[in-house]
Amino acid sequence: METTRSDSHLNRYAARAQGMVASEIRALFAVASRPEIVSLAGGMPFVNALPLDAVGAMLQHLIVTKGAEALQYGSAQGDPELRERICDVMALEGITASPEDVTVTVGSQQALDLLSKIFIDPGDVVLAESPSYVGALGTFAAYQAEVVHIPMDGYGIIPEALRETLVRLRAENRRVKFLYTVPTFQNPAGVTLSAPRRAELLALAEEFDLLIIEDNPYGLLSFDAAPPRPLRADESERVIYLGSFSKTFSSGMRVGWALAPHAVRAKLVLAAESAILSHSNLTQLAVREFLATHPWRDQVKSFVELYRERRDTMLTALDEFMPEGTTWTRPAGGFFVWLTLPEGLDSKAMSPLALANRVAYVPGTGFYSDGTGHRHMRISYCYPEPARIREGVQRLATVINQELSLRNTFA
Amino acid sequence: METTRSDSHLNRYAARAQGMVASEIRALFAVASRPEIVSLAGGMPFVNALPLDAVGAMLQHLIVTKGAEALQYGSAQGDPELRERICDVMALEGITASPEDVTVTVGSQQALDLLSKIFIDPGDVVLAESPSYVGALGTFAAYQAEVVHIPMDGYGIIPEALRETLVRLRAENRRVKFLYTVPTFQNPAGVTLSAPRRAELLALAEEFDLLIIEDNPYGLLSFDAAPPRPLRADESERVIYLGSFSKTFSSGMRVGWALAPHAVRAKLVLAAESAILSHSNLTQLAVREFLATHPWRDQVKSFVELYRERRDTMLTALDEFMPEGTTWTRPAGGFFVWLTLPEGLDSKAMSPLALANRVAYVPGTGFYSDGTGHRHMRISYCYPEPARIREGVQRLATVINQELSLRNTFA
Repeated sequence: METTRSDSHLNRYAARAQGMVASEIRALFAVASRPEIVSLAGGMPFVNALPLDAVGAMLQHLIVTKGAEALQYGSAQGDPELRERICDVMALEGITASPEDVTVTVGSQQALDLLSKIFIDPGDVVLAESPSYVGALGTFAAYQAEVVHIPMDGYGIIPEALRETLVRLRAENRRVKFLYTVPTFQNPAGVTLSAPRRAELLALAEEFDLLIIEDNPYGLLSFDAAPPRPLRADESERVIYLGSFSKTFSSGMRVGWALAPHAVRAKLVLAAESAILSHSNLTQLAVREFLATHPWRDQVKSFVELYRERRDTMLTALDEFMPEGTTWTRPAGGFFVWLTLPEGLDSKAMSPLALANRVAYVPGTGFYSDGTGHRHMRISYCYPEPARIREGVQRLATVINQELSLRNTFA
Repeated sequence: METTRSDSHLNRYAARAQGMVASEIRALFAVASRPEIVSLAGGMPFVNALPLDAVGAMLQHLIVTKGAEALQYGSAQGDPELRERICDVMALEGITASPEDVTVTVGSQQALDLLSKIFIDPGDVVLAESPSYVGALGTFAAYQAEVVHIPMDGYGIIPEALRETLVRLRAENRRVKFLYTVPTFQNPAGVTLSAPRRAELLALAEEFDLLIIEDNPYGLLSFDAAPPRPLRADESERVIYLGSFSKTFSSGMRVGWALAPHAVRAKLVLAAESAILSHSNLTQLAVREFLATHPWRDQVKSFVELYRERRDTMLTALDEFMPEGTTWTRPAGGFFVWLTLPEGLDSKAMSPLALANRVAYVPGTGFYSDGTGHRHMRISYCYPEPARIREGVQRLATVINQELSLRNTFA
């Protein structure tokens, strides 16, 4: 908690800093990390499953053999060999790309920040799914964009709704800078854009001269089939693709990347240099060595098996414990289930009661820029062990039942 | 080299992106890295002097014992234990601080970026020494600040000149957001603000309600005496202090920090979260373990001895080889000498001839926002071995002599 002190610098801040306020989610995470609470709130990958002995030995070898490089400044665009390996990773999903067009970033989050810096003037419009990733919404807000949400259903963003919005905004003479989308195993909704809709989305991008930022941190974590084909695989000039090793290797490395059209890539590198000079060579070379010397496809497979089991556990428990009127998505990959409460219930208002019942989730409101989302919540199965997931869902059902009793008593 | 292609996204960029153009220095560095060239251009620390076996073993131990933490997301403010160790490092220079007021950043560069984001509206004034650090000037430009340079001499920034500028800007109703200064072993000039001037500077900050950003990456690399007392040691509310492990341990870690007044620190953490979510836990814990388990003060001492020898080599060679009319600073620490050419010579125009003579330096123009600096250059002694430094200075003197002959022939 912040103590309230007067801020002698208050009249010095930039206009954009007025909107920088602590997110409720951050405070929630602090409470949710207590051991007695089952946290279905976080999005932390289960890195405990990594072969720590092997990773440790790899890092030692890296320093002893290439320490003078690993411990030195690098370039703003990122290590050339790592960028080649990144192209190999993207090829798994059908993307053909040159290492020249890849910029290594401090997780995908930095790519979002740099792209916002390059593209967003105050008052510009950014389109995003409804709901959308909370970290992206925060970054767009920091650059004073207005986020306009586009409705989704179980098959992802609805093309007809996107078209209507684009037509309306064009009529209003608004400057739409880009559409931000997580088409595959979406955060927070857990849904995946269908193949026909992917084609429709690209046709709309062409028709309306729309730039798309495709954020794909979960693509390789596909439980039931081959990963869906990314938008970028079929369109290279209107799609900027963001990838990350946070979910397939280690979130502690903070190694992500942006694949962008040539001219945008040049701006990205300049923005990266201005923001951090260069990315850590140590973490870049660690990822590079991991990809070069480890059976990393097997590592991804073992993560897929681990998360699939947890997804199954969560869906089974939801089927078993949730009261009527509660609905949820059935993700085919990634980390998240999106749950909708029975009519009249409010996930944000219910959160303290849930914490008192030793279960945490993220209220839906954080994933909307327009103040909606009260009936929804994000629950994650990525980090807790299966038995804890089941326990957490059961506790959550108890809380919802309590709220339903209250509602029925007073209704 | 960039190929010239048409940029189909040209009408999409934000106003701030128009000013993002590749720096000449970056192109120079690419050429200067050729093995036949003695580069006095770079600012790379000589990390080859680190005990690589020990660092490698430390990293292995870290992953095996704390891998689940090191490979996981961290907090936006940075690891709490590392922030405690950072306070120990600052205490060496006389700063008393709480870990609560420290934010870990991706090198000092990210601190400059985040502070610019928090404070700078387009058109705001930032004050900086004349010359000033090129990386800071680039960041201020990316946020559309106008940099006003304040003259320096061999004792650092001139307080009377600062006063005059503050009075003038106040009369012009300009919004001065902060003074950016590297008071100790300055980059690029190699000079150090004298103790009496430090007191005068703080008095002016009080009188004009001026915020100071004190960037101190080189403070501990003091060759001839104890490190000078930072401004922050005597004023905590008007000074934001930036530190870094890039020069005392490893630049490849990208671990720096900002020590800021409480309210500013809160904004910094929010800006950091929006920019990168969290810093790499791996590199943070690596630095933390290095500080906790290694004789790091001895490591700093051995760097001091190494750089002192190189500084001495450079100054001796300058005395021996440079023609009359050439002057230079005599740094008491840090990485850089600032050289002023004889009247009529232009360091930028001379640069291709120098490269042809297999020596590289940074022309002075990069360190000014106002288009001046043509008679100056930055030469560094941090990275080349002493024999190479001597060779490089000799080659540089040859080039200057050639230019002088030309000047005298045509004058």
